[in-house]
Amino acid sequence: MAGSSFGRHFRITNWGESHGPAIGTVVDGCPPRLELAAADIQRELDRRRPGQSALTTPRAEPDQVQILSGVFRGRTTGTPISLLIPSTNVISQDYAEIAHAYRPGHADFTYQAKYGIRDPFGGGRSSARVTAGIVAAGAIAQKLLREQAGITVTSYVKRLGPILAETDPETVHREMVERSPVRCPDPASAERMMALIRETAARQDSVGGIVECIIRNVPPGLGDPIFDKLDADLAKAMLAINASKGFELGSGFACATMTGSQHNDPFELRDGRVATRTNHAGGILGGISTGMPIVFRVAFKPTASIGRPQHTLTEDGQPTVLQTKGRHDPSVLPRAVPVVDAMAALVILDHFLALTGFAGRPPPPATQA
Amino acid sequence: MAGSSFGRHFRITNWGESHGPAIGTVVDGCPPRLELAAADIQRELDRRRPGQSALTTPRAEPDQVQILSGVFRGRTTGTPISLLIPSTNVISQDYAEIAHAYRPGHADFTYQAKYGIRDPFGGGRSSARVTAGIVAAGAIAQKLLREQAGITVTSYVKRLGPILAETDPETVHREMVERSPVRCPDPASAERMMALIRETAARQDSVGGIVECIIRNVPPGLGDPIFDKLDADLAKAMLAINASKGFELGSGFACATMTGSQHNDPFELRDGRVATRTNHAGGILGGISTGMPIVFRVAFKPTASIGRPQHTLTEDGQPTVLQTKGRHDPSVLPRAVPVVDAMAALVILDHFLALTGFAGRPPPPATQA
Amino acid sequence: MAGSSFGRHFRITNWGESHGPAIGTVVDGCPPRLELAAADIQRELDRRRPGQSALTTPRAEPDQVQILSGVFRGRTTGTPISLLIPSTNVISQDYAEIAHAYRPGHADFTYQAKYGIRDPFGGGRSSARVTAGIVAAGAIAQKLLREQAGITVTSYVKRLGPILAETDPETVHREMVERSPVRCPDPASAERMMALIRETAARQDSVGGIVECIIRNVPPGLGDPIFDKLDADLAKAMLAINASKGFELGSGFACATMTGSQHNDPFELRDGRVATRTNHAGGILGGISTGMPIVFRVAFKPTASIGRPQHTLTEDGQPTVLQTKGRHDPSVLPRAVPVVDAMAALVILDHFLALTGFAGRPPPPATQA
Amino acid sequence: MAGSSFGRHFRITNWGESHGPAIGTVVDGCPPRLELAAADIQRELDRRRPGQSALTTPRAEPDQVQILSGVFRGRTTGTPISLLIPSTNVISQDYAEIAHAYRPGHADFTYQAKYGIRDPFGGGRSSARVTAGIVAAGAIAQKLLREQAGITVTSYVKRLGPILAETDPETVHREMVERSPVRCPDPASAERMMALIRETAARQDSVGGIVECIIRNVPPGLGDPIFDKLDADLAKAMLAINASKGFELGSGFACATMTGSQHNDPFELRDGRVATRTNHAGGILGGISTGMPIVFRVAFKPTASIGRPQHTLTEDGQPTVLQTKGRHDPSVLPRAVPVVDAMAALVILDHFLALTGFAGRPPPPATQA
Repeated sequence: MAGSSFGRHFRITNWGESHGPAIGTVVDGCPPRLELAAADIQRELDRRRPGQSALTTPRAEPDQVQILSGVFRGRTTGTPISLLIPSTNVISQDYAEIAHAYRPGHADFTYQAKYGIRDPFGGGRSSARVTAGIVAAGAIAQKLLREQAGITVTSYVKRLGPILAETDPETVHREMVERSPVRCPDPASAERMMALIRETAARQDSVGGIVECIIRNVPPGLGDPIFDKLDADLAKAMLAINASKGFELGSGFACATMTGSQHNDPFELRDGRVATRTNHAGGILGGISTGMPIVFRVAFKPTASIGRPQHTLTEDGQPTVLQTKGRHDPSVLPRAVPVVDAMAALVILDHFLALTGFAGRPPPPATQA
Repeated sequence: MAGSSFGRHFRITNWGESHGPAIGTVVDGCPPRLELAAADIQRELDRRRPGQSALTTPRAEPDQVQILSGVFRGRTTGTPISLLIPSTNVISQDYAEIAHAYRPGHADFTYQAKYGIRDPFGGGRSSARVTAGIVAAGAIAQKLLREQAGITVTSYVKRLGPILAETDPETVHREMVERSPVRCPDPASAERMMALIRETAARQDSVGGIVECIIRNVPPGLGDPIFDKLDADLAKAMLAINASKGFELGSGFACATMTGSQHNDPFELRDGRVATRTNHAGGILGGISTGMPIVFRVAFKPTASIGRPQHTLTEDGQPTVLQTKGRHDPSVLPRAVPVVDAMAALVILDHFLALTGFAGRPPPPATQA
Repeated sequence: MAGSSFGRHFRITNWGESHGPAIGTVVDGCPPRLELAAADIQRELDRRRPGQSALTTPRAEPDQVQILSGVFRGRTTGTPISLLIPSTNVISQDYAEIAHAYRPGHADFTYQAKYGIRDPFGGGRSSARVTAGIVAAGAIAQKLLREQAGITVTSYVKRLGPILAETDPETVHREMVERSPVRCPDPASAERMMALIRETAARQDSVGGIVECIIRNVPPGLGDPIFDKLDADLAKAMLAINASKGFELGSGFACATMTGSQHNDPFELRDGRVATRTNHAGGILGGISTGMPIVFRVAFKPTASIGRPQHTLTEDGQPTVLQTKGRHDPSVLPRAVPVVDAMAALVILDHFLALTGFAGRPPPPATQA
Repeated sequence: MAGSSFGRHFRITNWGESHGPAIGTVVDGCPPRLELAAADIQRELDRRRPGQSALTTPRAEPDQVQILSGVFRGRTTGTPISLLIPSTNVISQDYAEIAHAYRPGHADFTYQAKYGIRDPFGGGRSSARVTAGIVAAGAIAQKLLREQAGITVTSYVKRLGPILAETDPETVHREMVERSPVRCPDPASAERMMALIRETAARQDSVGGIVECIIRNVPPGLGDPIFDKLDADLAKAMLAINASKGFELGSGFACATMTGSQHNDPFELRDGRVATRTNHAGGILGGISTGMPIVFRVAFKPTASIGRPQHTLTEDGQPTVLQTKGRHDPSVLPRAVPVVDAMAALVILDHFLALTGFAGRPPPPATQA
């Protein structure tokens, strides 16, 4: 329980460092008999991989996933699925140079303080590269949710710096998101965001933003009060993503200036089902899904790696000025979108399996019928 | 694992319904030989209990805690501590009336959808009354943190509706918080907040707000990447509190409009220790504590129970108008403060024990020396 | 996670000391809408309580259970069930006398070594009295298994000292077990066992034995390889019972002298179902239930508390001679039987719920149909 | 939580199937700054690998382990250690032939019943091949225990069929064990055991036995009552090993015929430490280590794979006669020894870290001194 596992029913265990020979994830608890091929996972990995557009780091990692276990003749067997992603483009760096200074906004100092040792290359274990393993596992979760329950997850860039996209949570879907490299479904805002990223990069700086996520077709009843509330688990999942600084559900922080008579969502029948007229709740009440779309937002800080000189300390406590030369994204937002999709799917699937059990439990063998 | 337990090392299990004979919490994993008396717990419970001021519900529950196990002659024994709080002021309600309609903003519908049955009195298990058990356990956690590590937790009302308090995270302490019934350490804002609560109550409405929390003297090194990051666990803990809608650490959502050169906190030596000049990180980098104060905020929605008539559905799906007569707080904020303190302490202590082990491990018996 | 919780889906948390005001257990994860009354639990508690026959300790504890939460109008609500058993017959002892010497065969020394403090009265937390809370939780588990899946658990005394009962695992049932105070379904052996207990008590000594347990109607498919095998979890459950020293499944230790051609159970069809001609496997293969009866045995050591003088050490490391005067059973076996029933049921139910999910998931509310 | 993880502090996650491209284990929670090289792990793997002597299956797998993460410049970093063992000698089999019949004594039927699908080659996930990943992880645990606490684990074949070795738990050590291919430290018995294995193999049959394990230098205080008792966790670990049918601690099942006055171990001082004159307890009292050697035994059934024709069913429920031609060991005992060592070490280390915390917590960085 040292932090590299997530989920209780669909449980993933993530491993690997930025510049190690490979990274990977083991998925335990995947229901049996799901059709699964590497291509199903690769699709999501390609959305996250570096070098996919001019907006991201030029480090060119193909991030080709291998399935080493848990799948037999194209179907899951219910046993652990081991996913391995070899690292191919690992540039050797001068250890002496990078290891000595604590990069501001990075985890160099805290890893050193906790472990007394760290792999400094590319941030080692604290690198966002480890989210590739999350996205791979999340691809399986999304496939399961979609095929077995019709549940879809759609994240997109809602805000980049000062630019706030106009989006309609009712209609937005992934195809609209994928049309722009910045993953904003509002074309006008997307254009301005891309311009902002280019300008920011030119200034050797970086910019933050907000990702919004809509999860549809979640049945009522997911979530375990008091502590494993569906929103509590989503909050944990989102804060576990590199560079995230906040989570809000439905009305979120705006609820602070609302009154109860404004905020309460009246219940009503819609198509014979219990629904609410508004959705300030964001699809969750008392920690349990209502059946309305789940809507939340995650704040991401500006990339900590910037080209500008920065004041900091060496490991020996000497003041120094650091100027990073590495390959980095001027904004993590576009590539954070598939990570939010993945983590959200992992949470929803975990609670889905809590209700349904080890899904796909087969009928007894024919001879027992 | 049905949601009523929290923590891996200092693990609490919470039980009880609003109108049952009692509520309680079992604490497993408390280090042995800590001095502990019911009075230590009662102090925190008194901060949360209803009827403590004119701002809160008039339901008068003394909330007197009993310690049923785990303490021998005034000291913890390392075995589970069972805390029991009898409920004394349980007003009988007419079942027929309250059970039939789903109260907007409450968990009546979602509990019914999940369980197919629910205790409707006072919201049953979904009532904020269950947080009394959390506050009781949190009192032990706070005592341990304070006495064994000098770690303190200080929460307060930062915003109520439109009123934003001016507070200095460097100097605020609990005594300042407790001076006002609204638990805002800025006296001028506190006055305005109390006025707002009275006005809102008069309108039979409610108001939301934001609680800010400062945790001091946390050593560097707490938190387990990738998934059990310290901030991820704090986020989960905060979203598990009734009525919360969002969590943000340090710069929080404001980071979206910042650049990396603004946001990165430069490292520097202070009193011979590694510190950062600013603290946009909020005391956590890469999921591990930096040694700087941990600063976060939690958004709370306006109380769902309001006196105004509201449109909703009965359990049979019939539209109805509901007018709640119950006893409720016009704002949950003042009484949410000790709950935030409690949950924050539980998270910090859990990670503290992860590092140190079952703290207070005794030296071998004298005869083994 | 300090050891007082058991189970992943139907999770119990046990608390209390021998001479504290009460002991209890919290059950989290019980499916909703099960009919449950205190009497359902009391029946099992009465099988375990002291003073039930001349064979057991004369400490007369009525062990009356109270249900403090989780049940509404006679049905479980899916929320935690808090079970409380007040202790009424707590004789004050002289602390100075009992606290100073480590009783041989007891946990006095190990608790002192681990915690540096202990409640010495009646063995404190290490007392077998805490199994009352286990039996209470196990009563709920047995009711659920019986009513929802027809699964029954039948334990009995198979051996007491040199006396080996003749029993037929095919036909033995609980009524036969309960006919004799020694809980051996073979009447002739039961008589001899009772005589042996009386003789042993007269010599101020105690005697060990073996409990056998048969679990019927377990469907094939329960158990999670590699580590949470059904037999692995049963083994853990049985070794967690006070005074147990061994666990064996099916052929057990006798398998050591068998050959593969003797031991392998041939598969065959029986009543249209896959069965095995013999059941050396004990109903589990590869950690997963086969559908055949699960058969295992548990060894219990002779009661450590005996009236004879014994050599030991005081807490200060001084040699001393200890002569216990307390109330104790000359053999734990008869009262261990309901504890084995309880723990076995908890394991089976836990794996049952892993397969089926939070059982009794209700249909959507009527208005959603 | 689908069964492929073990341990709470030093947590391993095992994956892989017999005939897949590789098998492996991820270790999470390994303390940082331990010197670790592949050779440290390889040594233990070589004790388990097939083809090491004439007594084992001729399947020649070199089982060369690769460390893919968690180690930097020869030292652990505190992050997950991913261990990968490629499978090289995977003989293609005729699917049609092997997939259709349930092999007696194997998990073919139960996997089919649970999952509705299975990888049939070499037993797939139920193959003892997966214990290679356990042995690899156990090698790290043994190294840690030895280097940080002087704790050693020594298992050996105590009984093979009717042959019971004479061994002295006080003096036996691993070098003595490794001197004979059958891993019995009593040379005379070892000779007879090897002869028995050869005879049994010639008859196309197999033979069972008992492994005994001694763990030395365990300090008093390891183990968490009530449910995570040290012996309960050992029992679970041992029953999780393929082909095991029973576990007993200290006196074990023999306690059934003992009296309390015989069984109780008198406390005495030895070298200034609390010890017991005898050790019927097997080193554990009340679930907590006493400081005496931990002694337990594990029963292993005769290998289920035998050359003789056996009656069974096809997947379609048709009676058939099966004659396995595969490569298998006439007795699992010699190769089970390193697996028992590994699982025992994992349990002890897990409880050791529970007491000490994330061991090897570094001093604060130099600049904080």
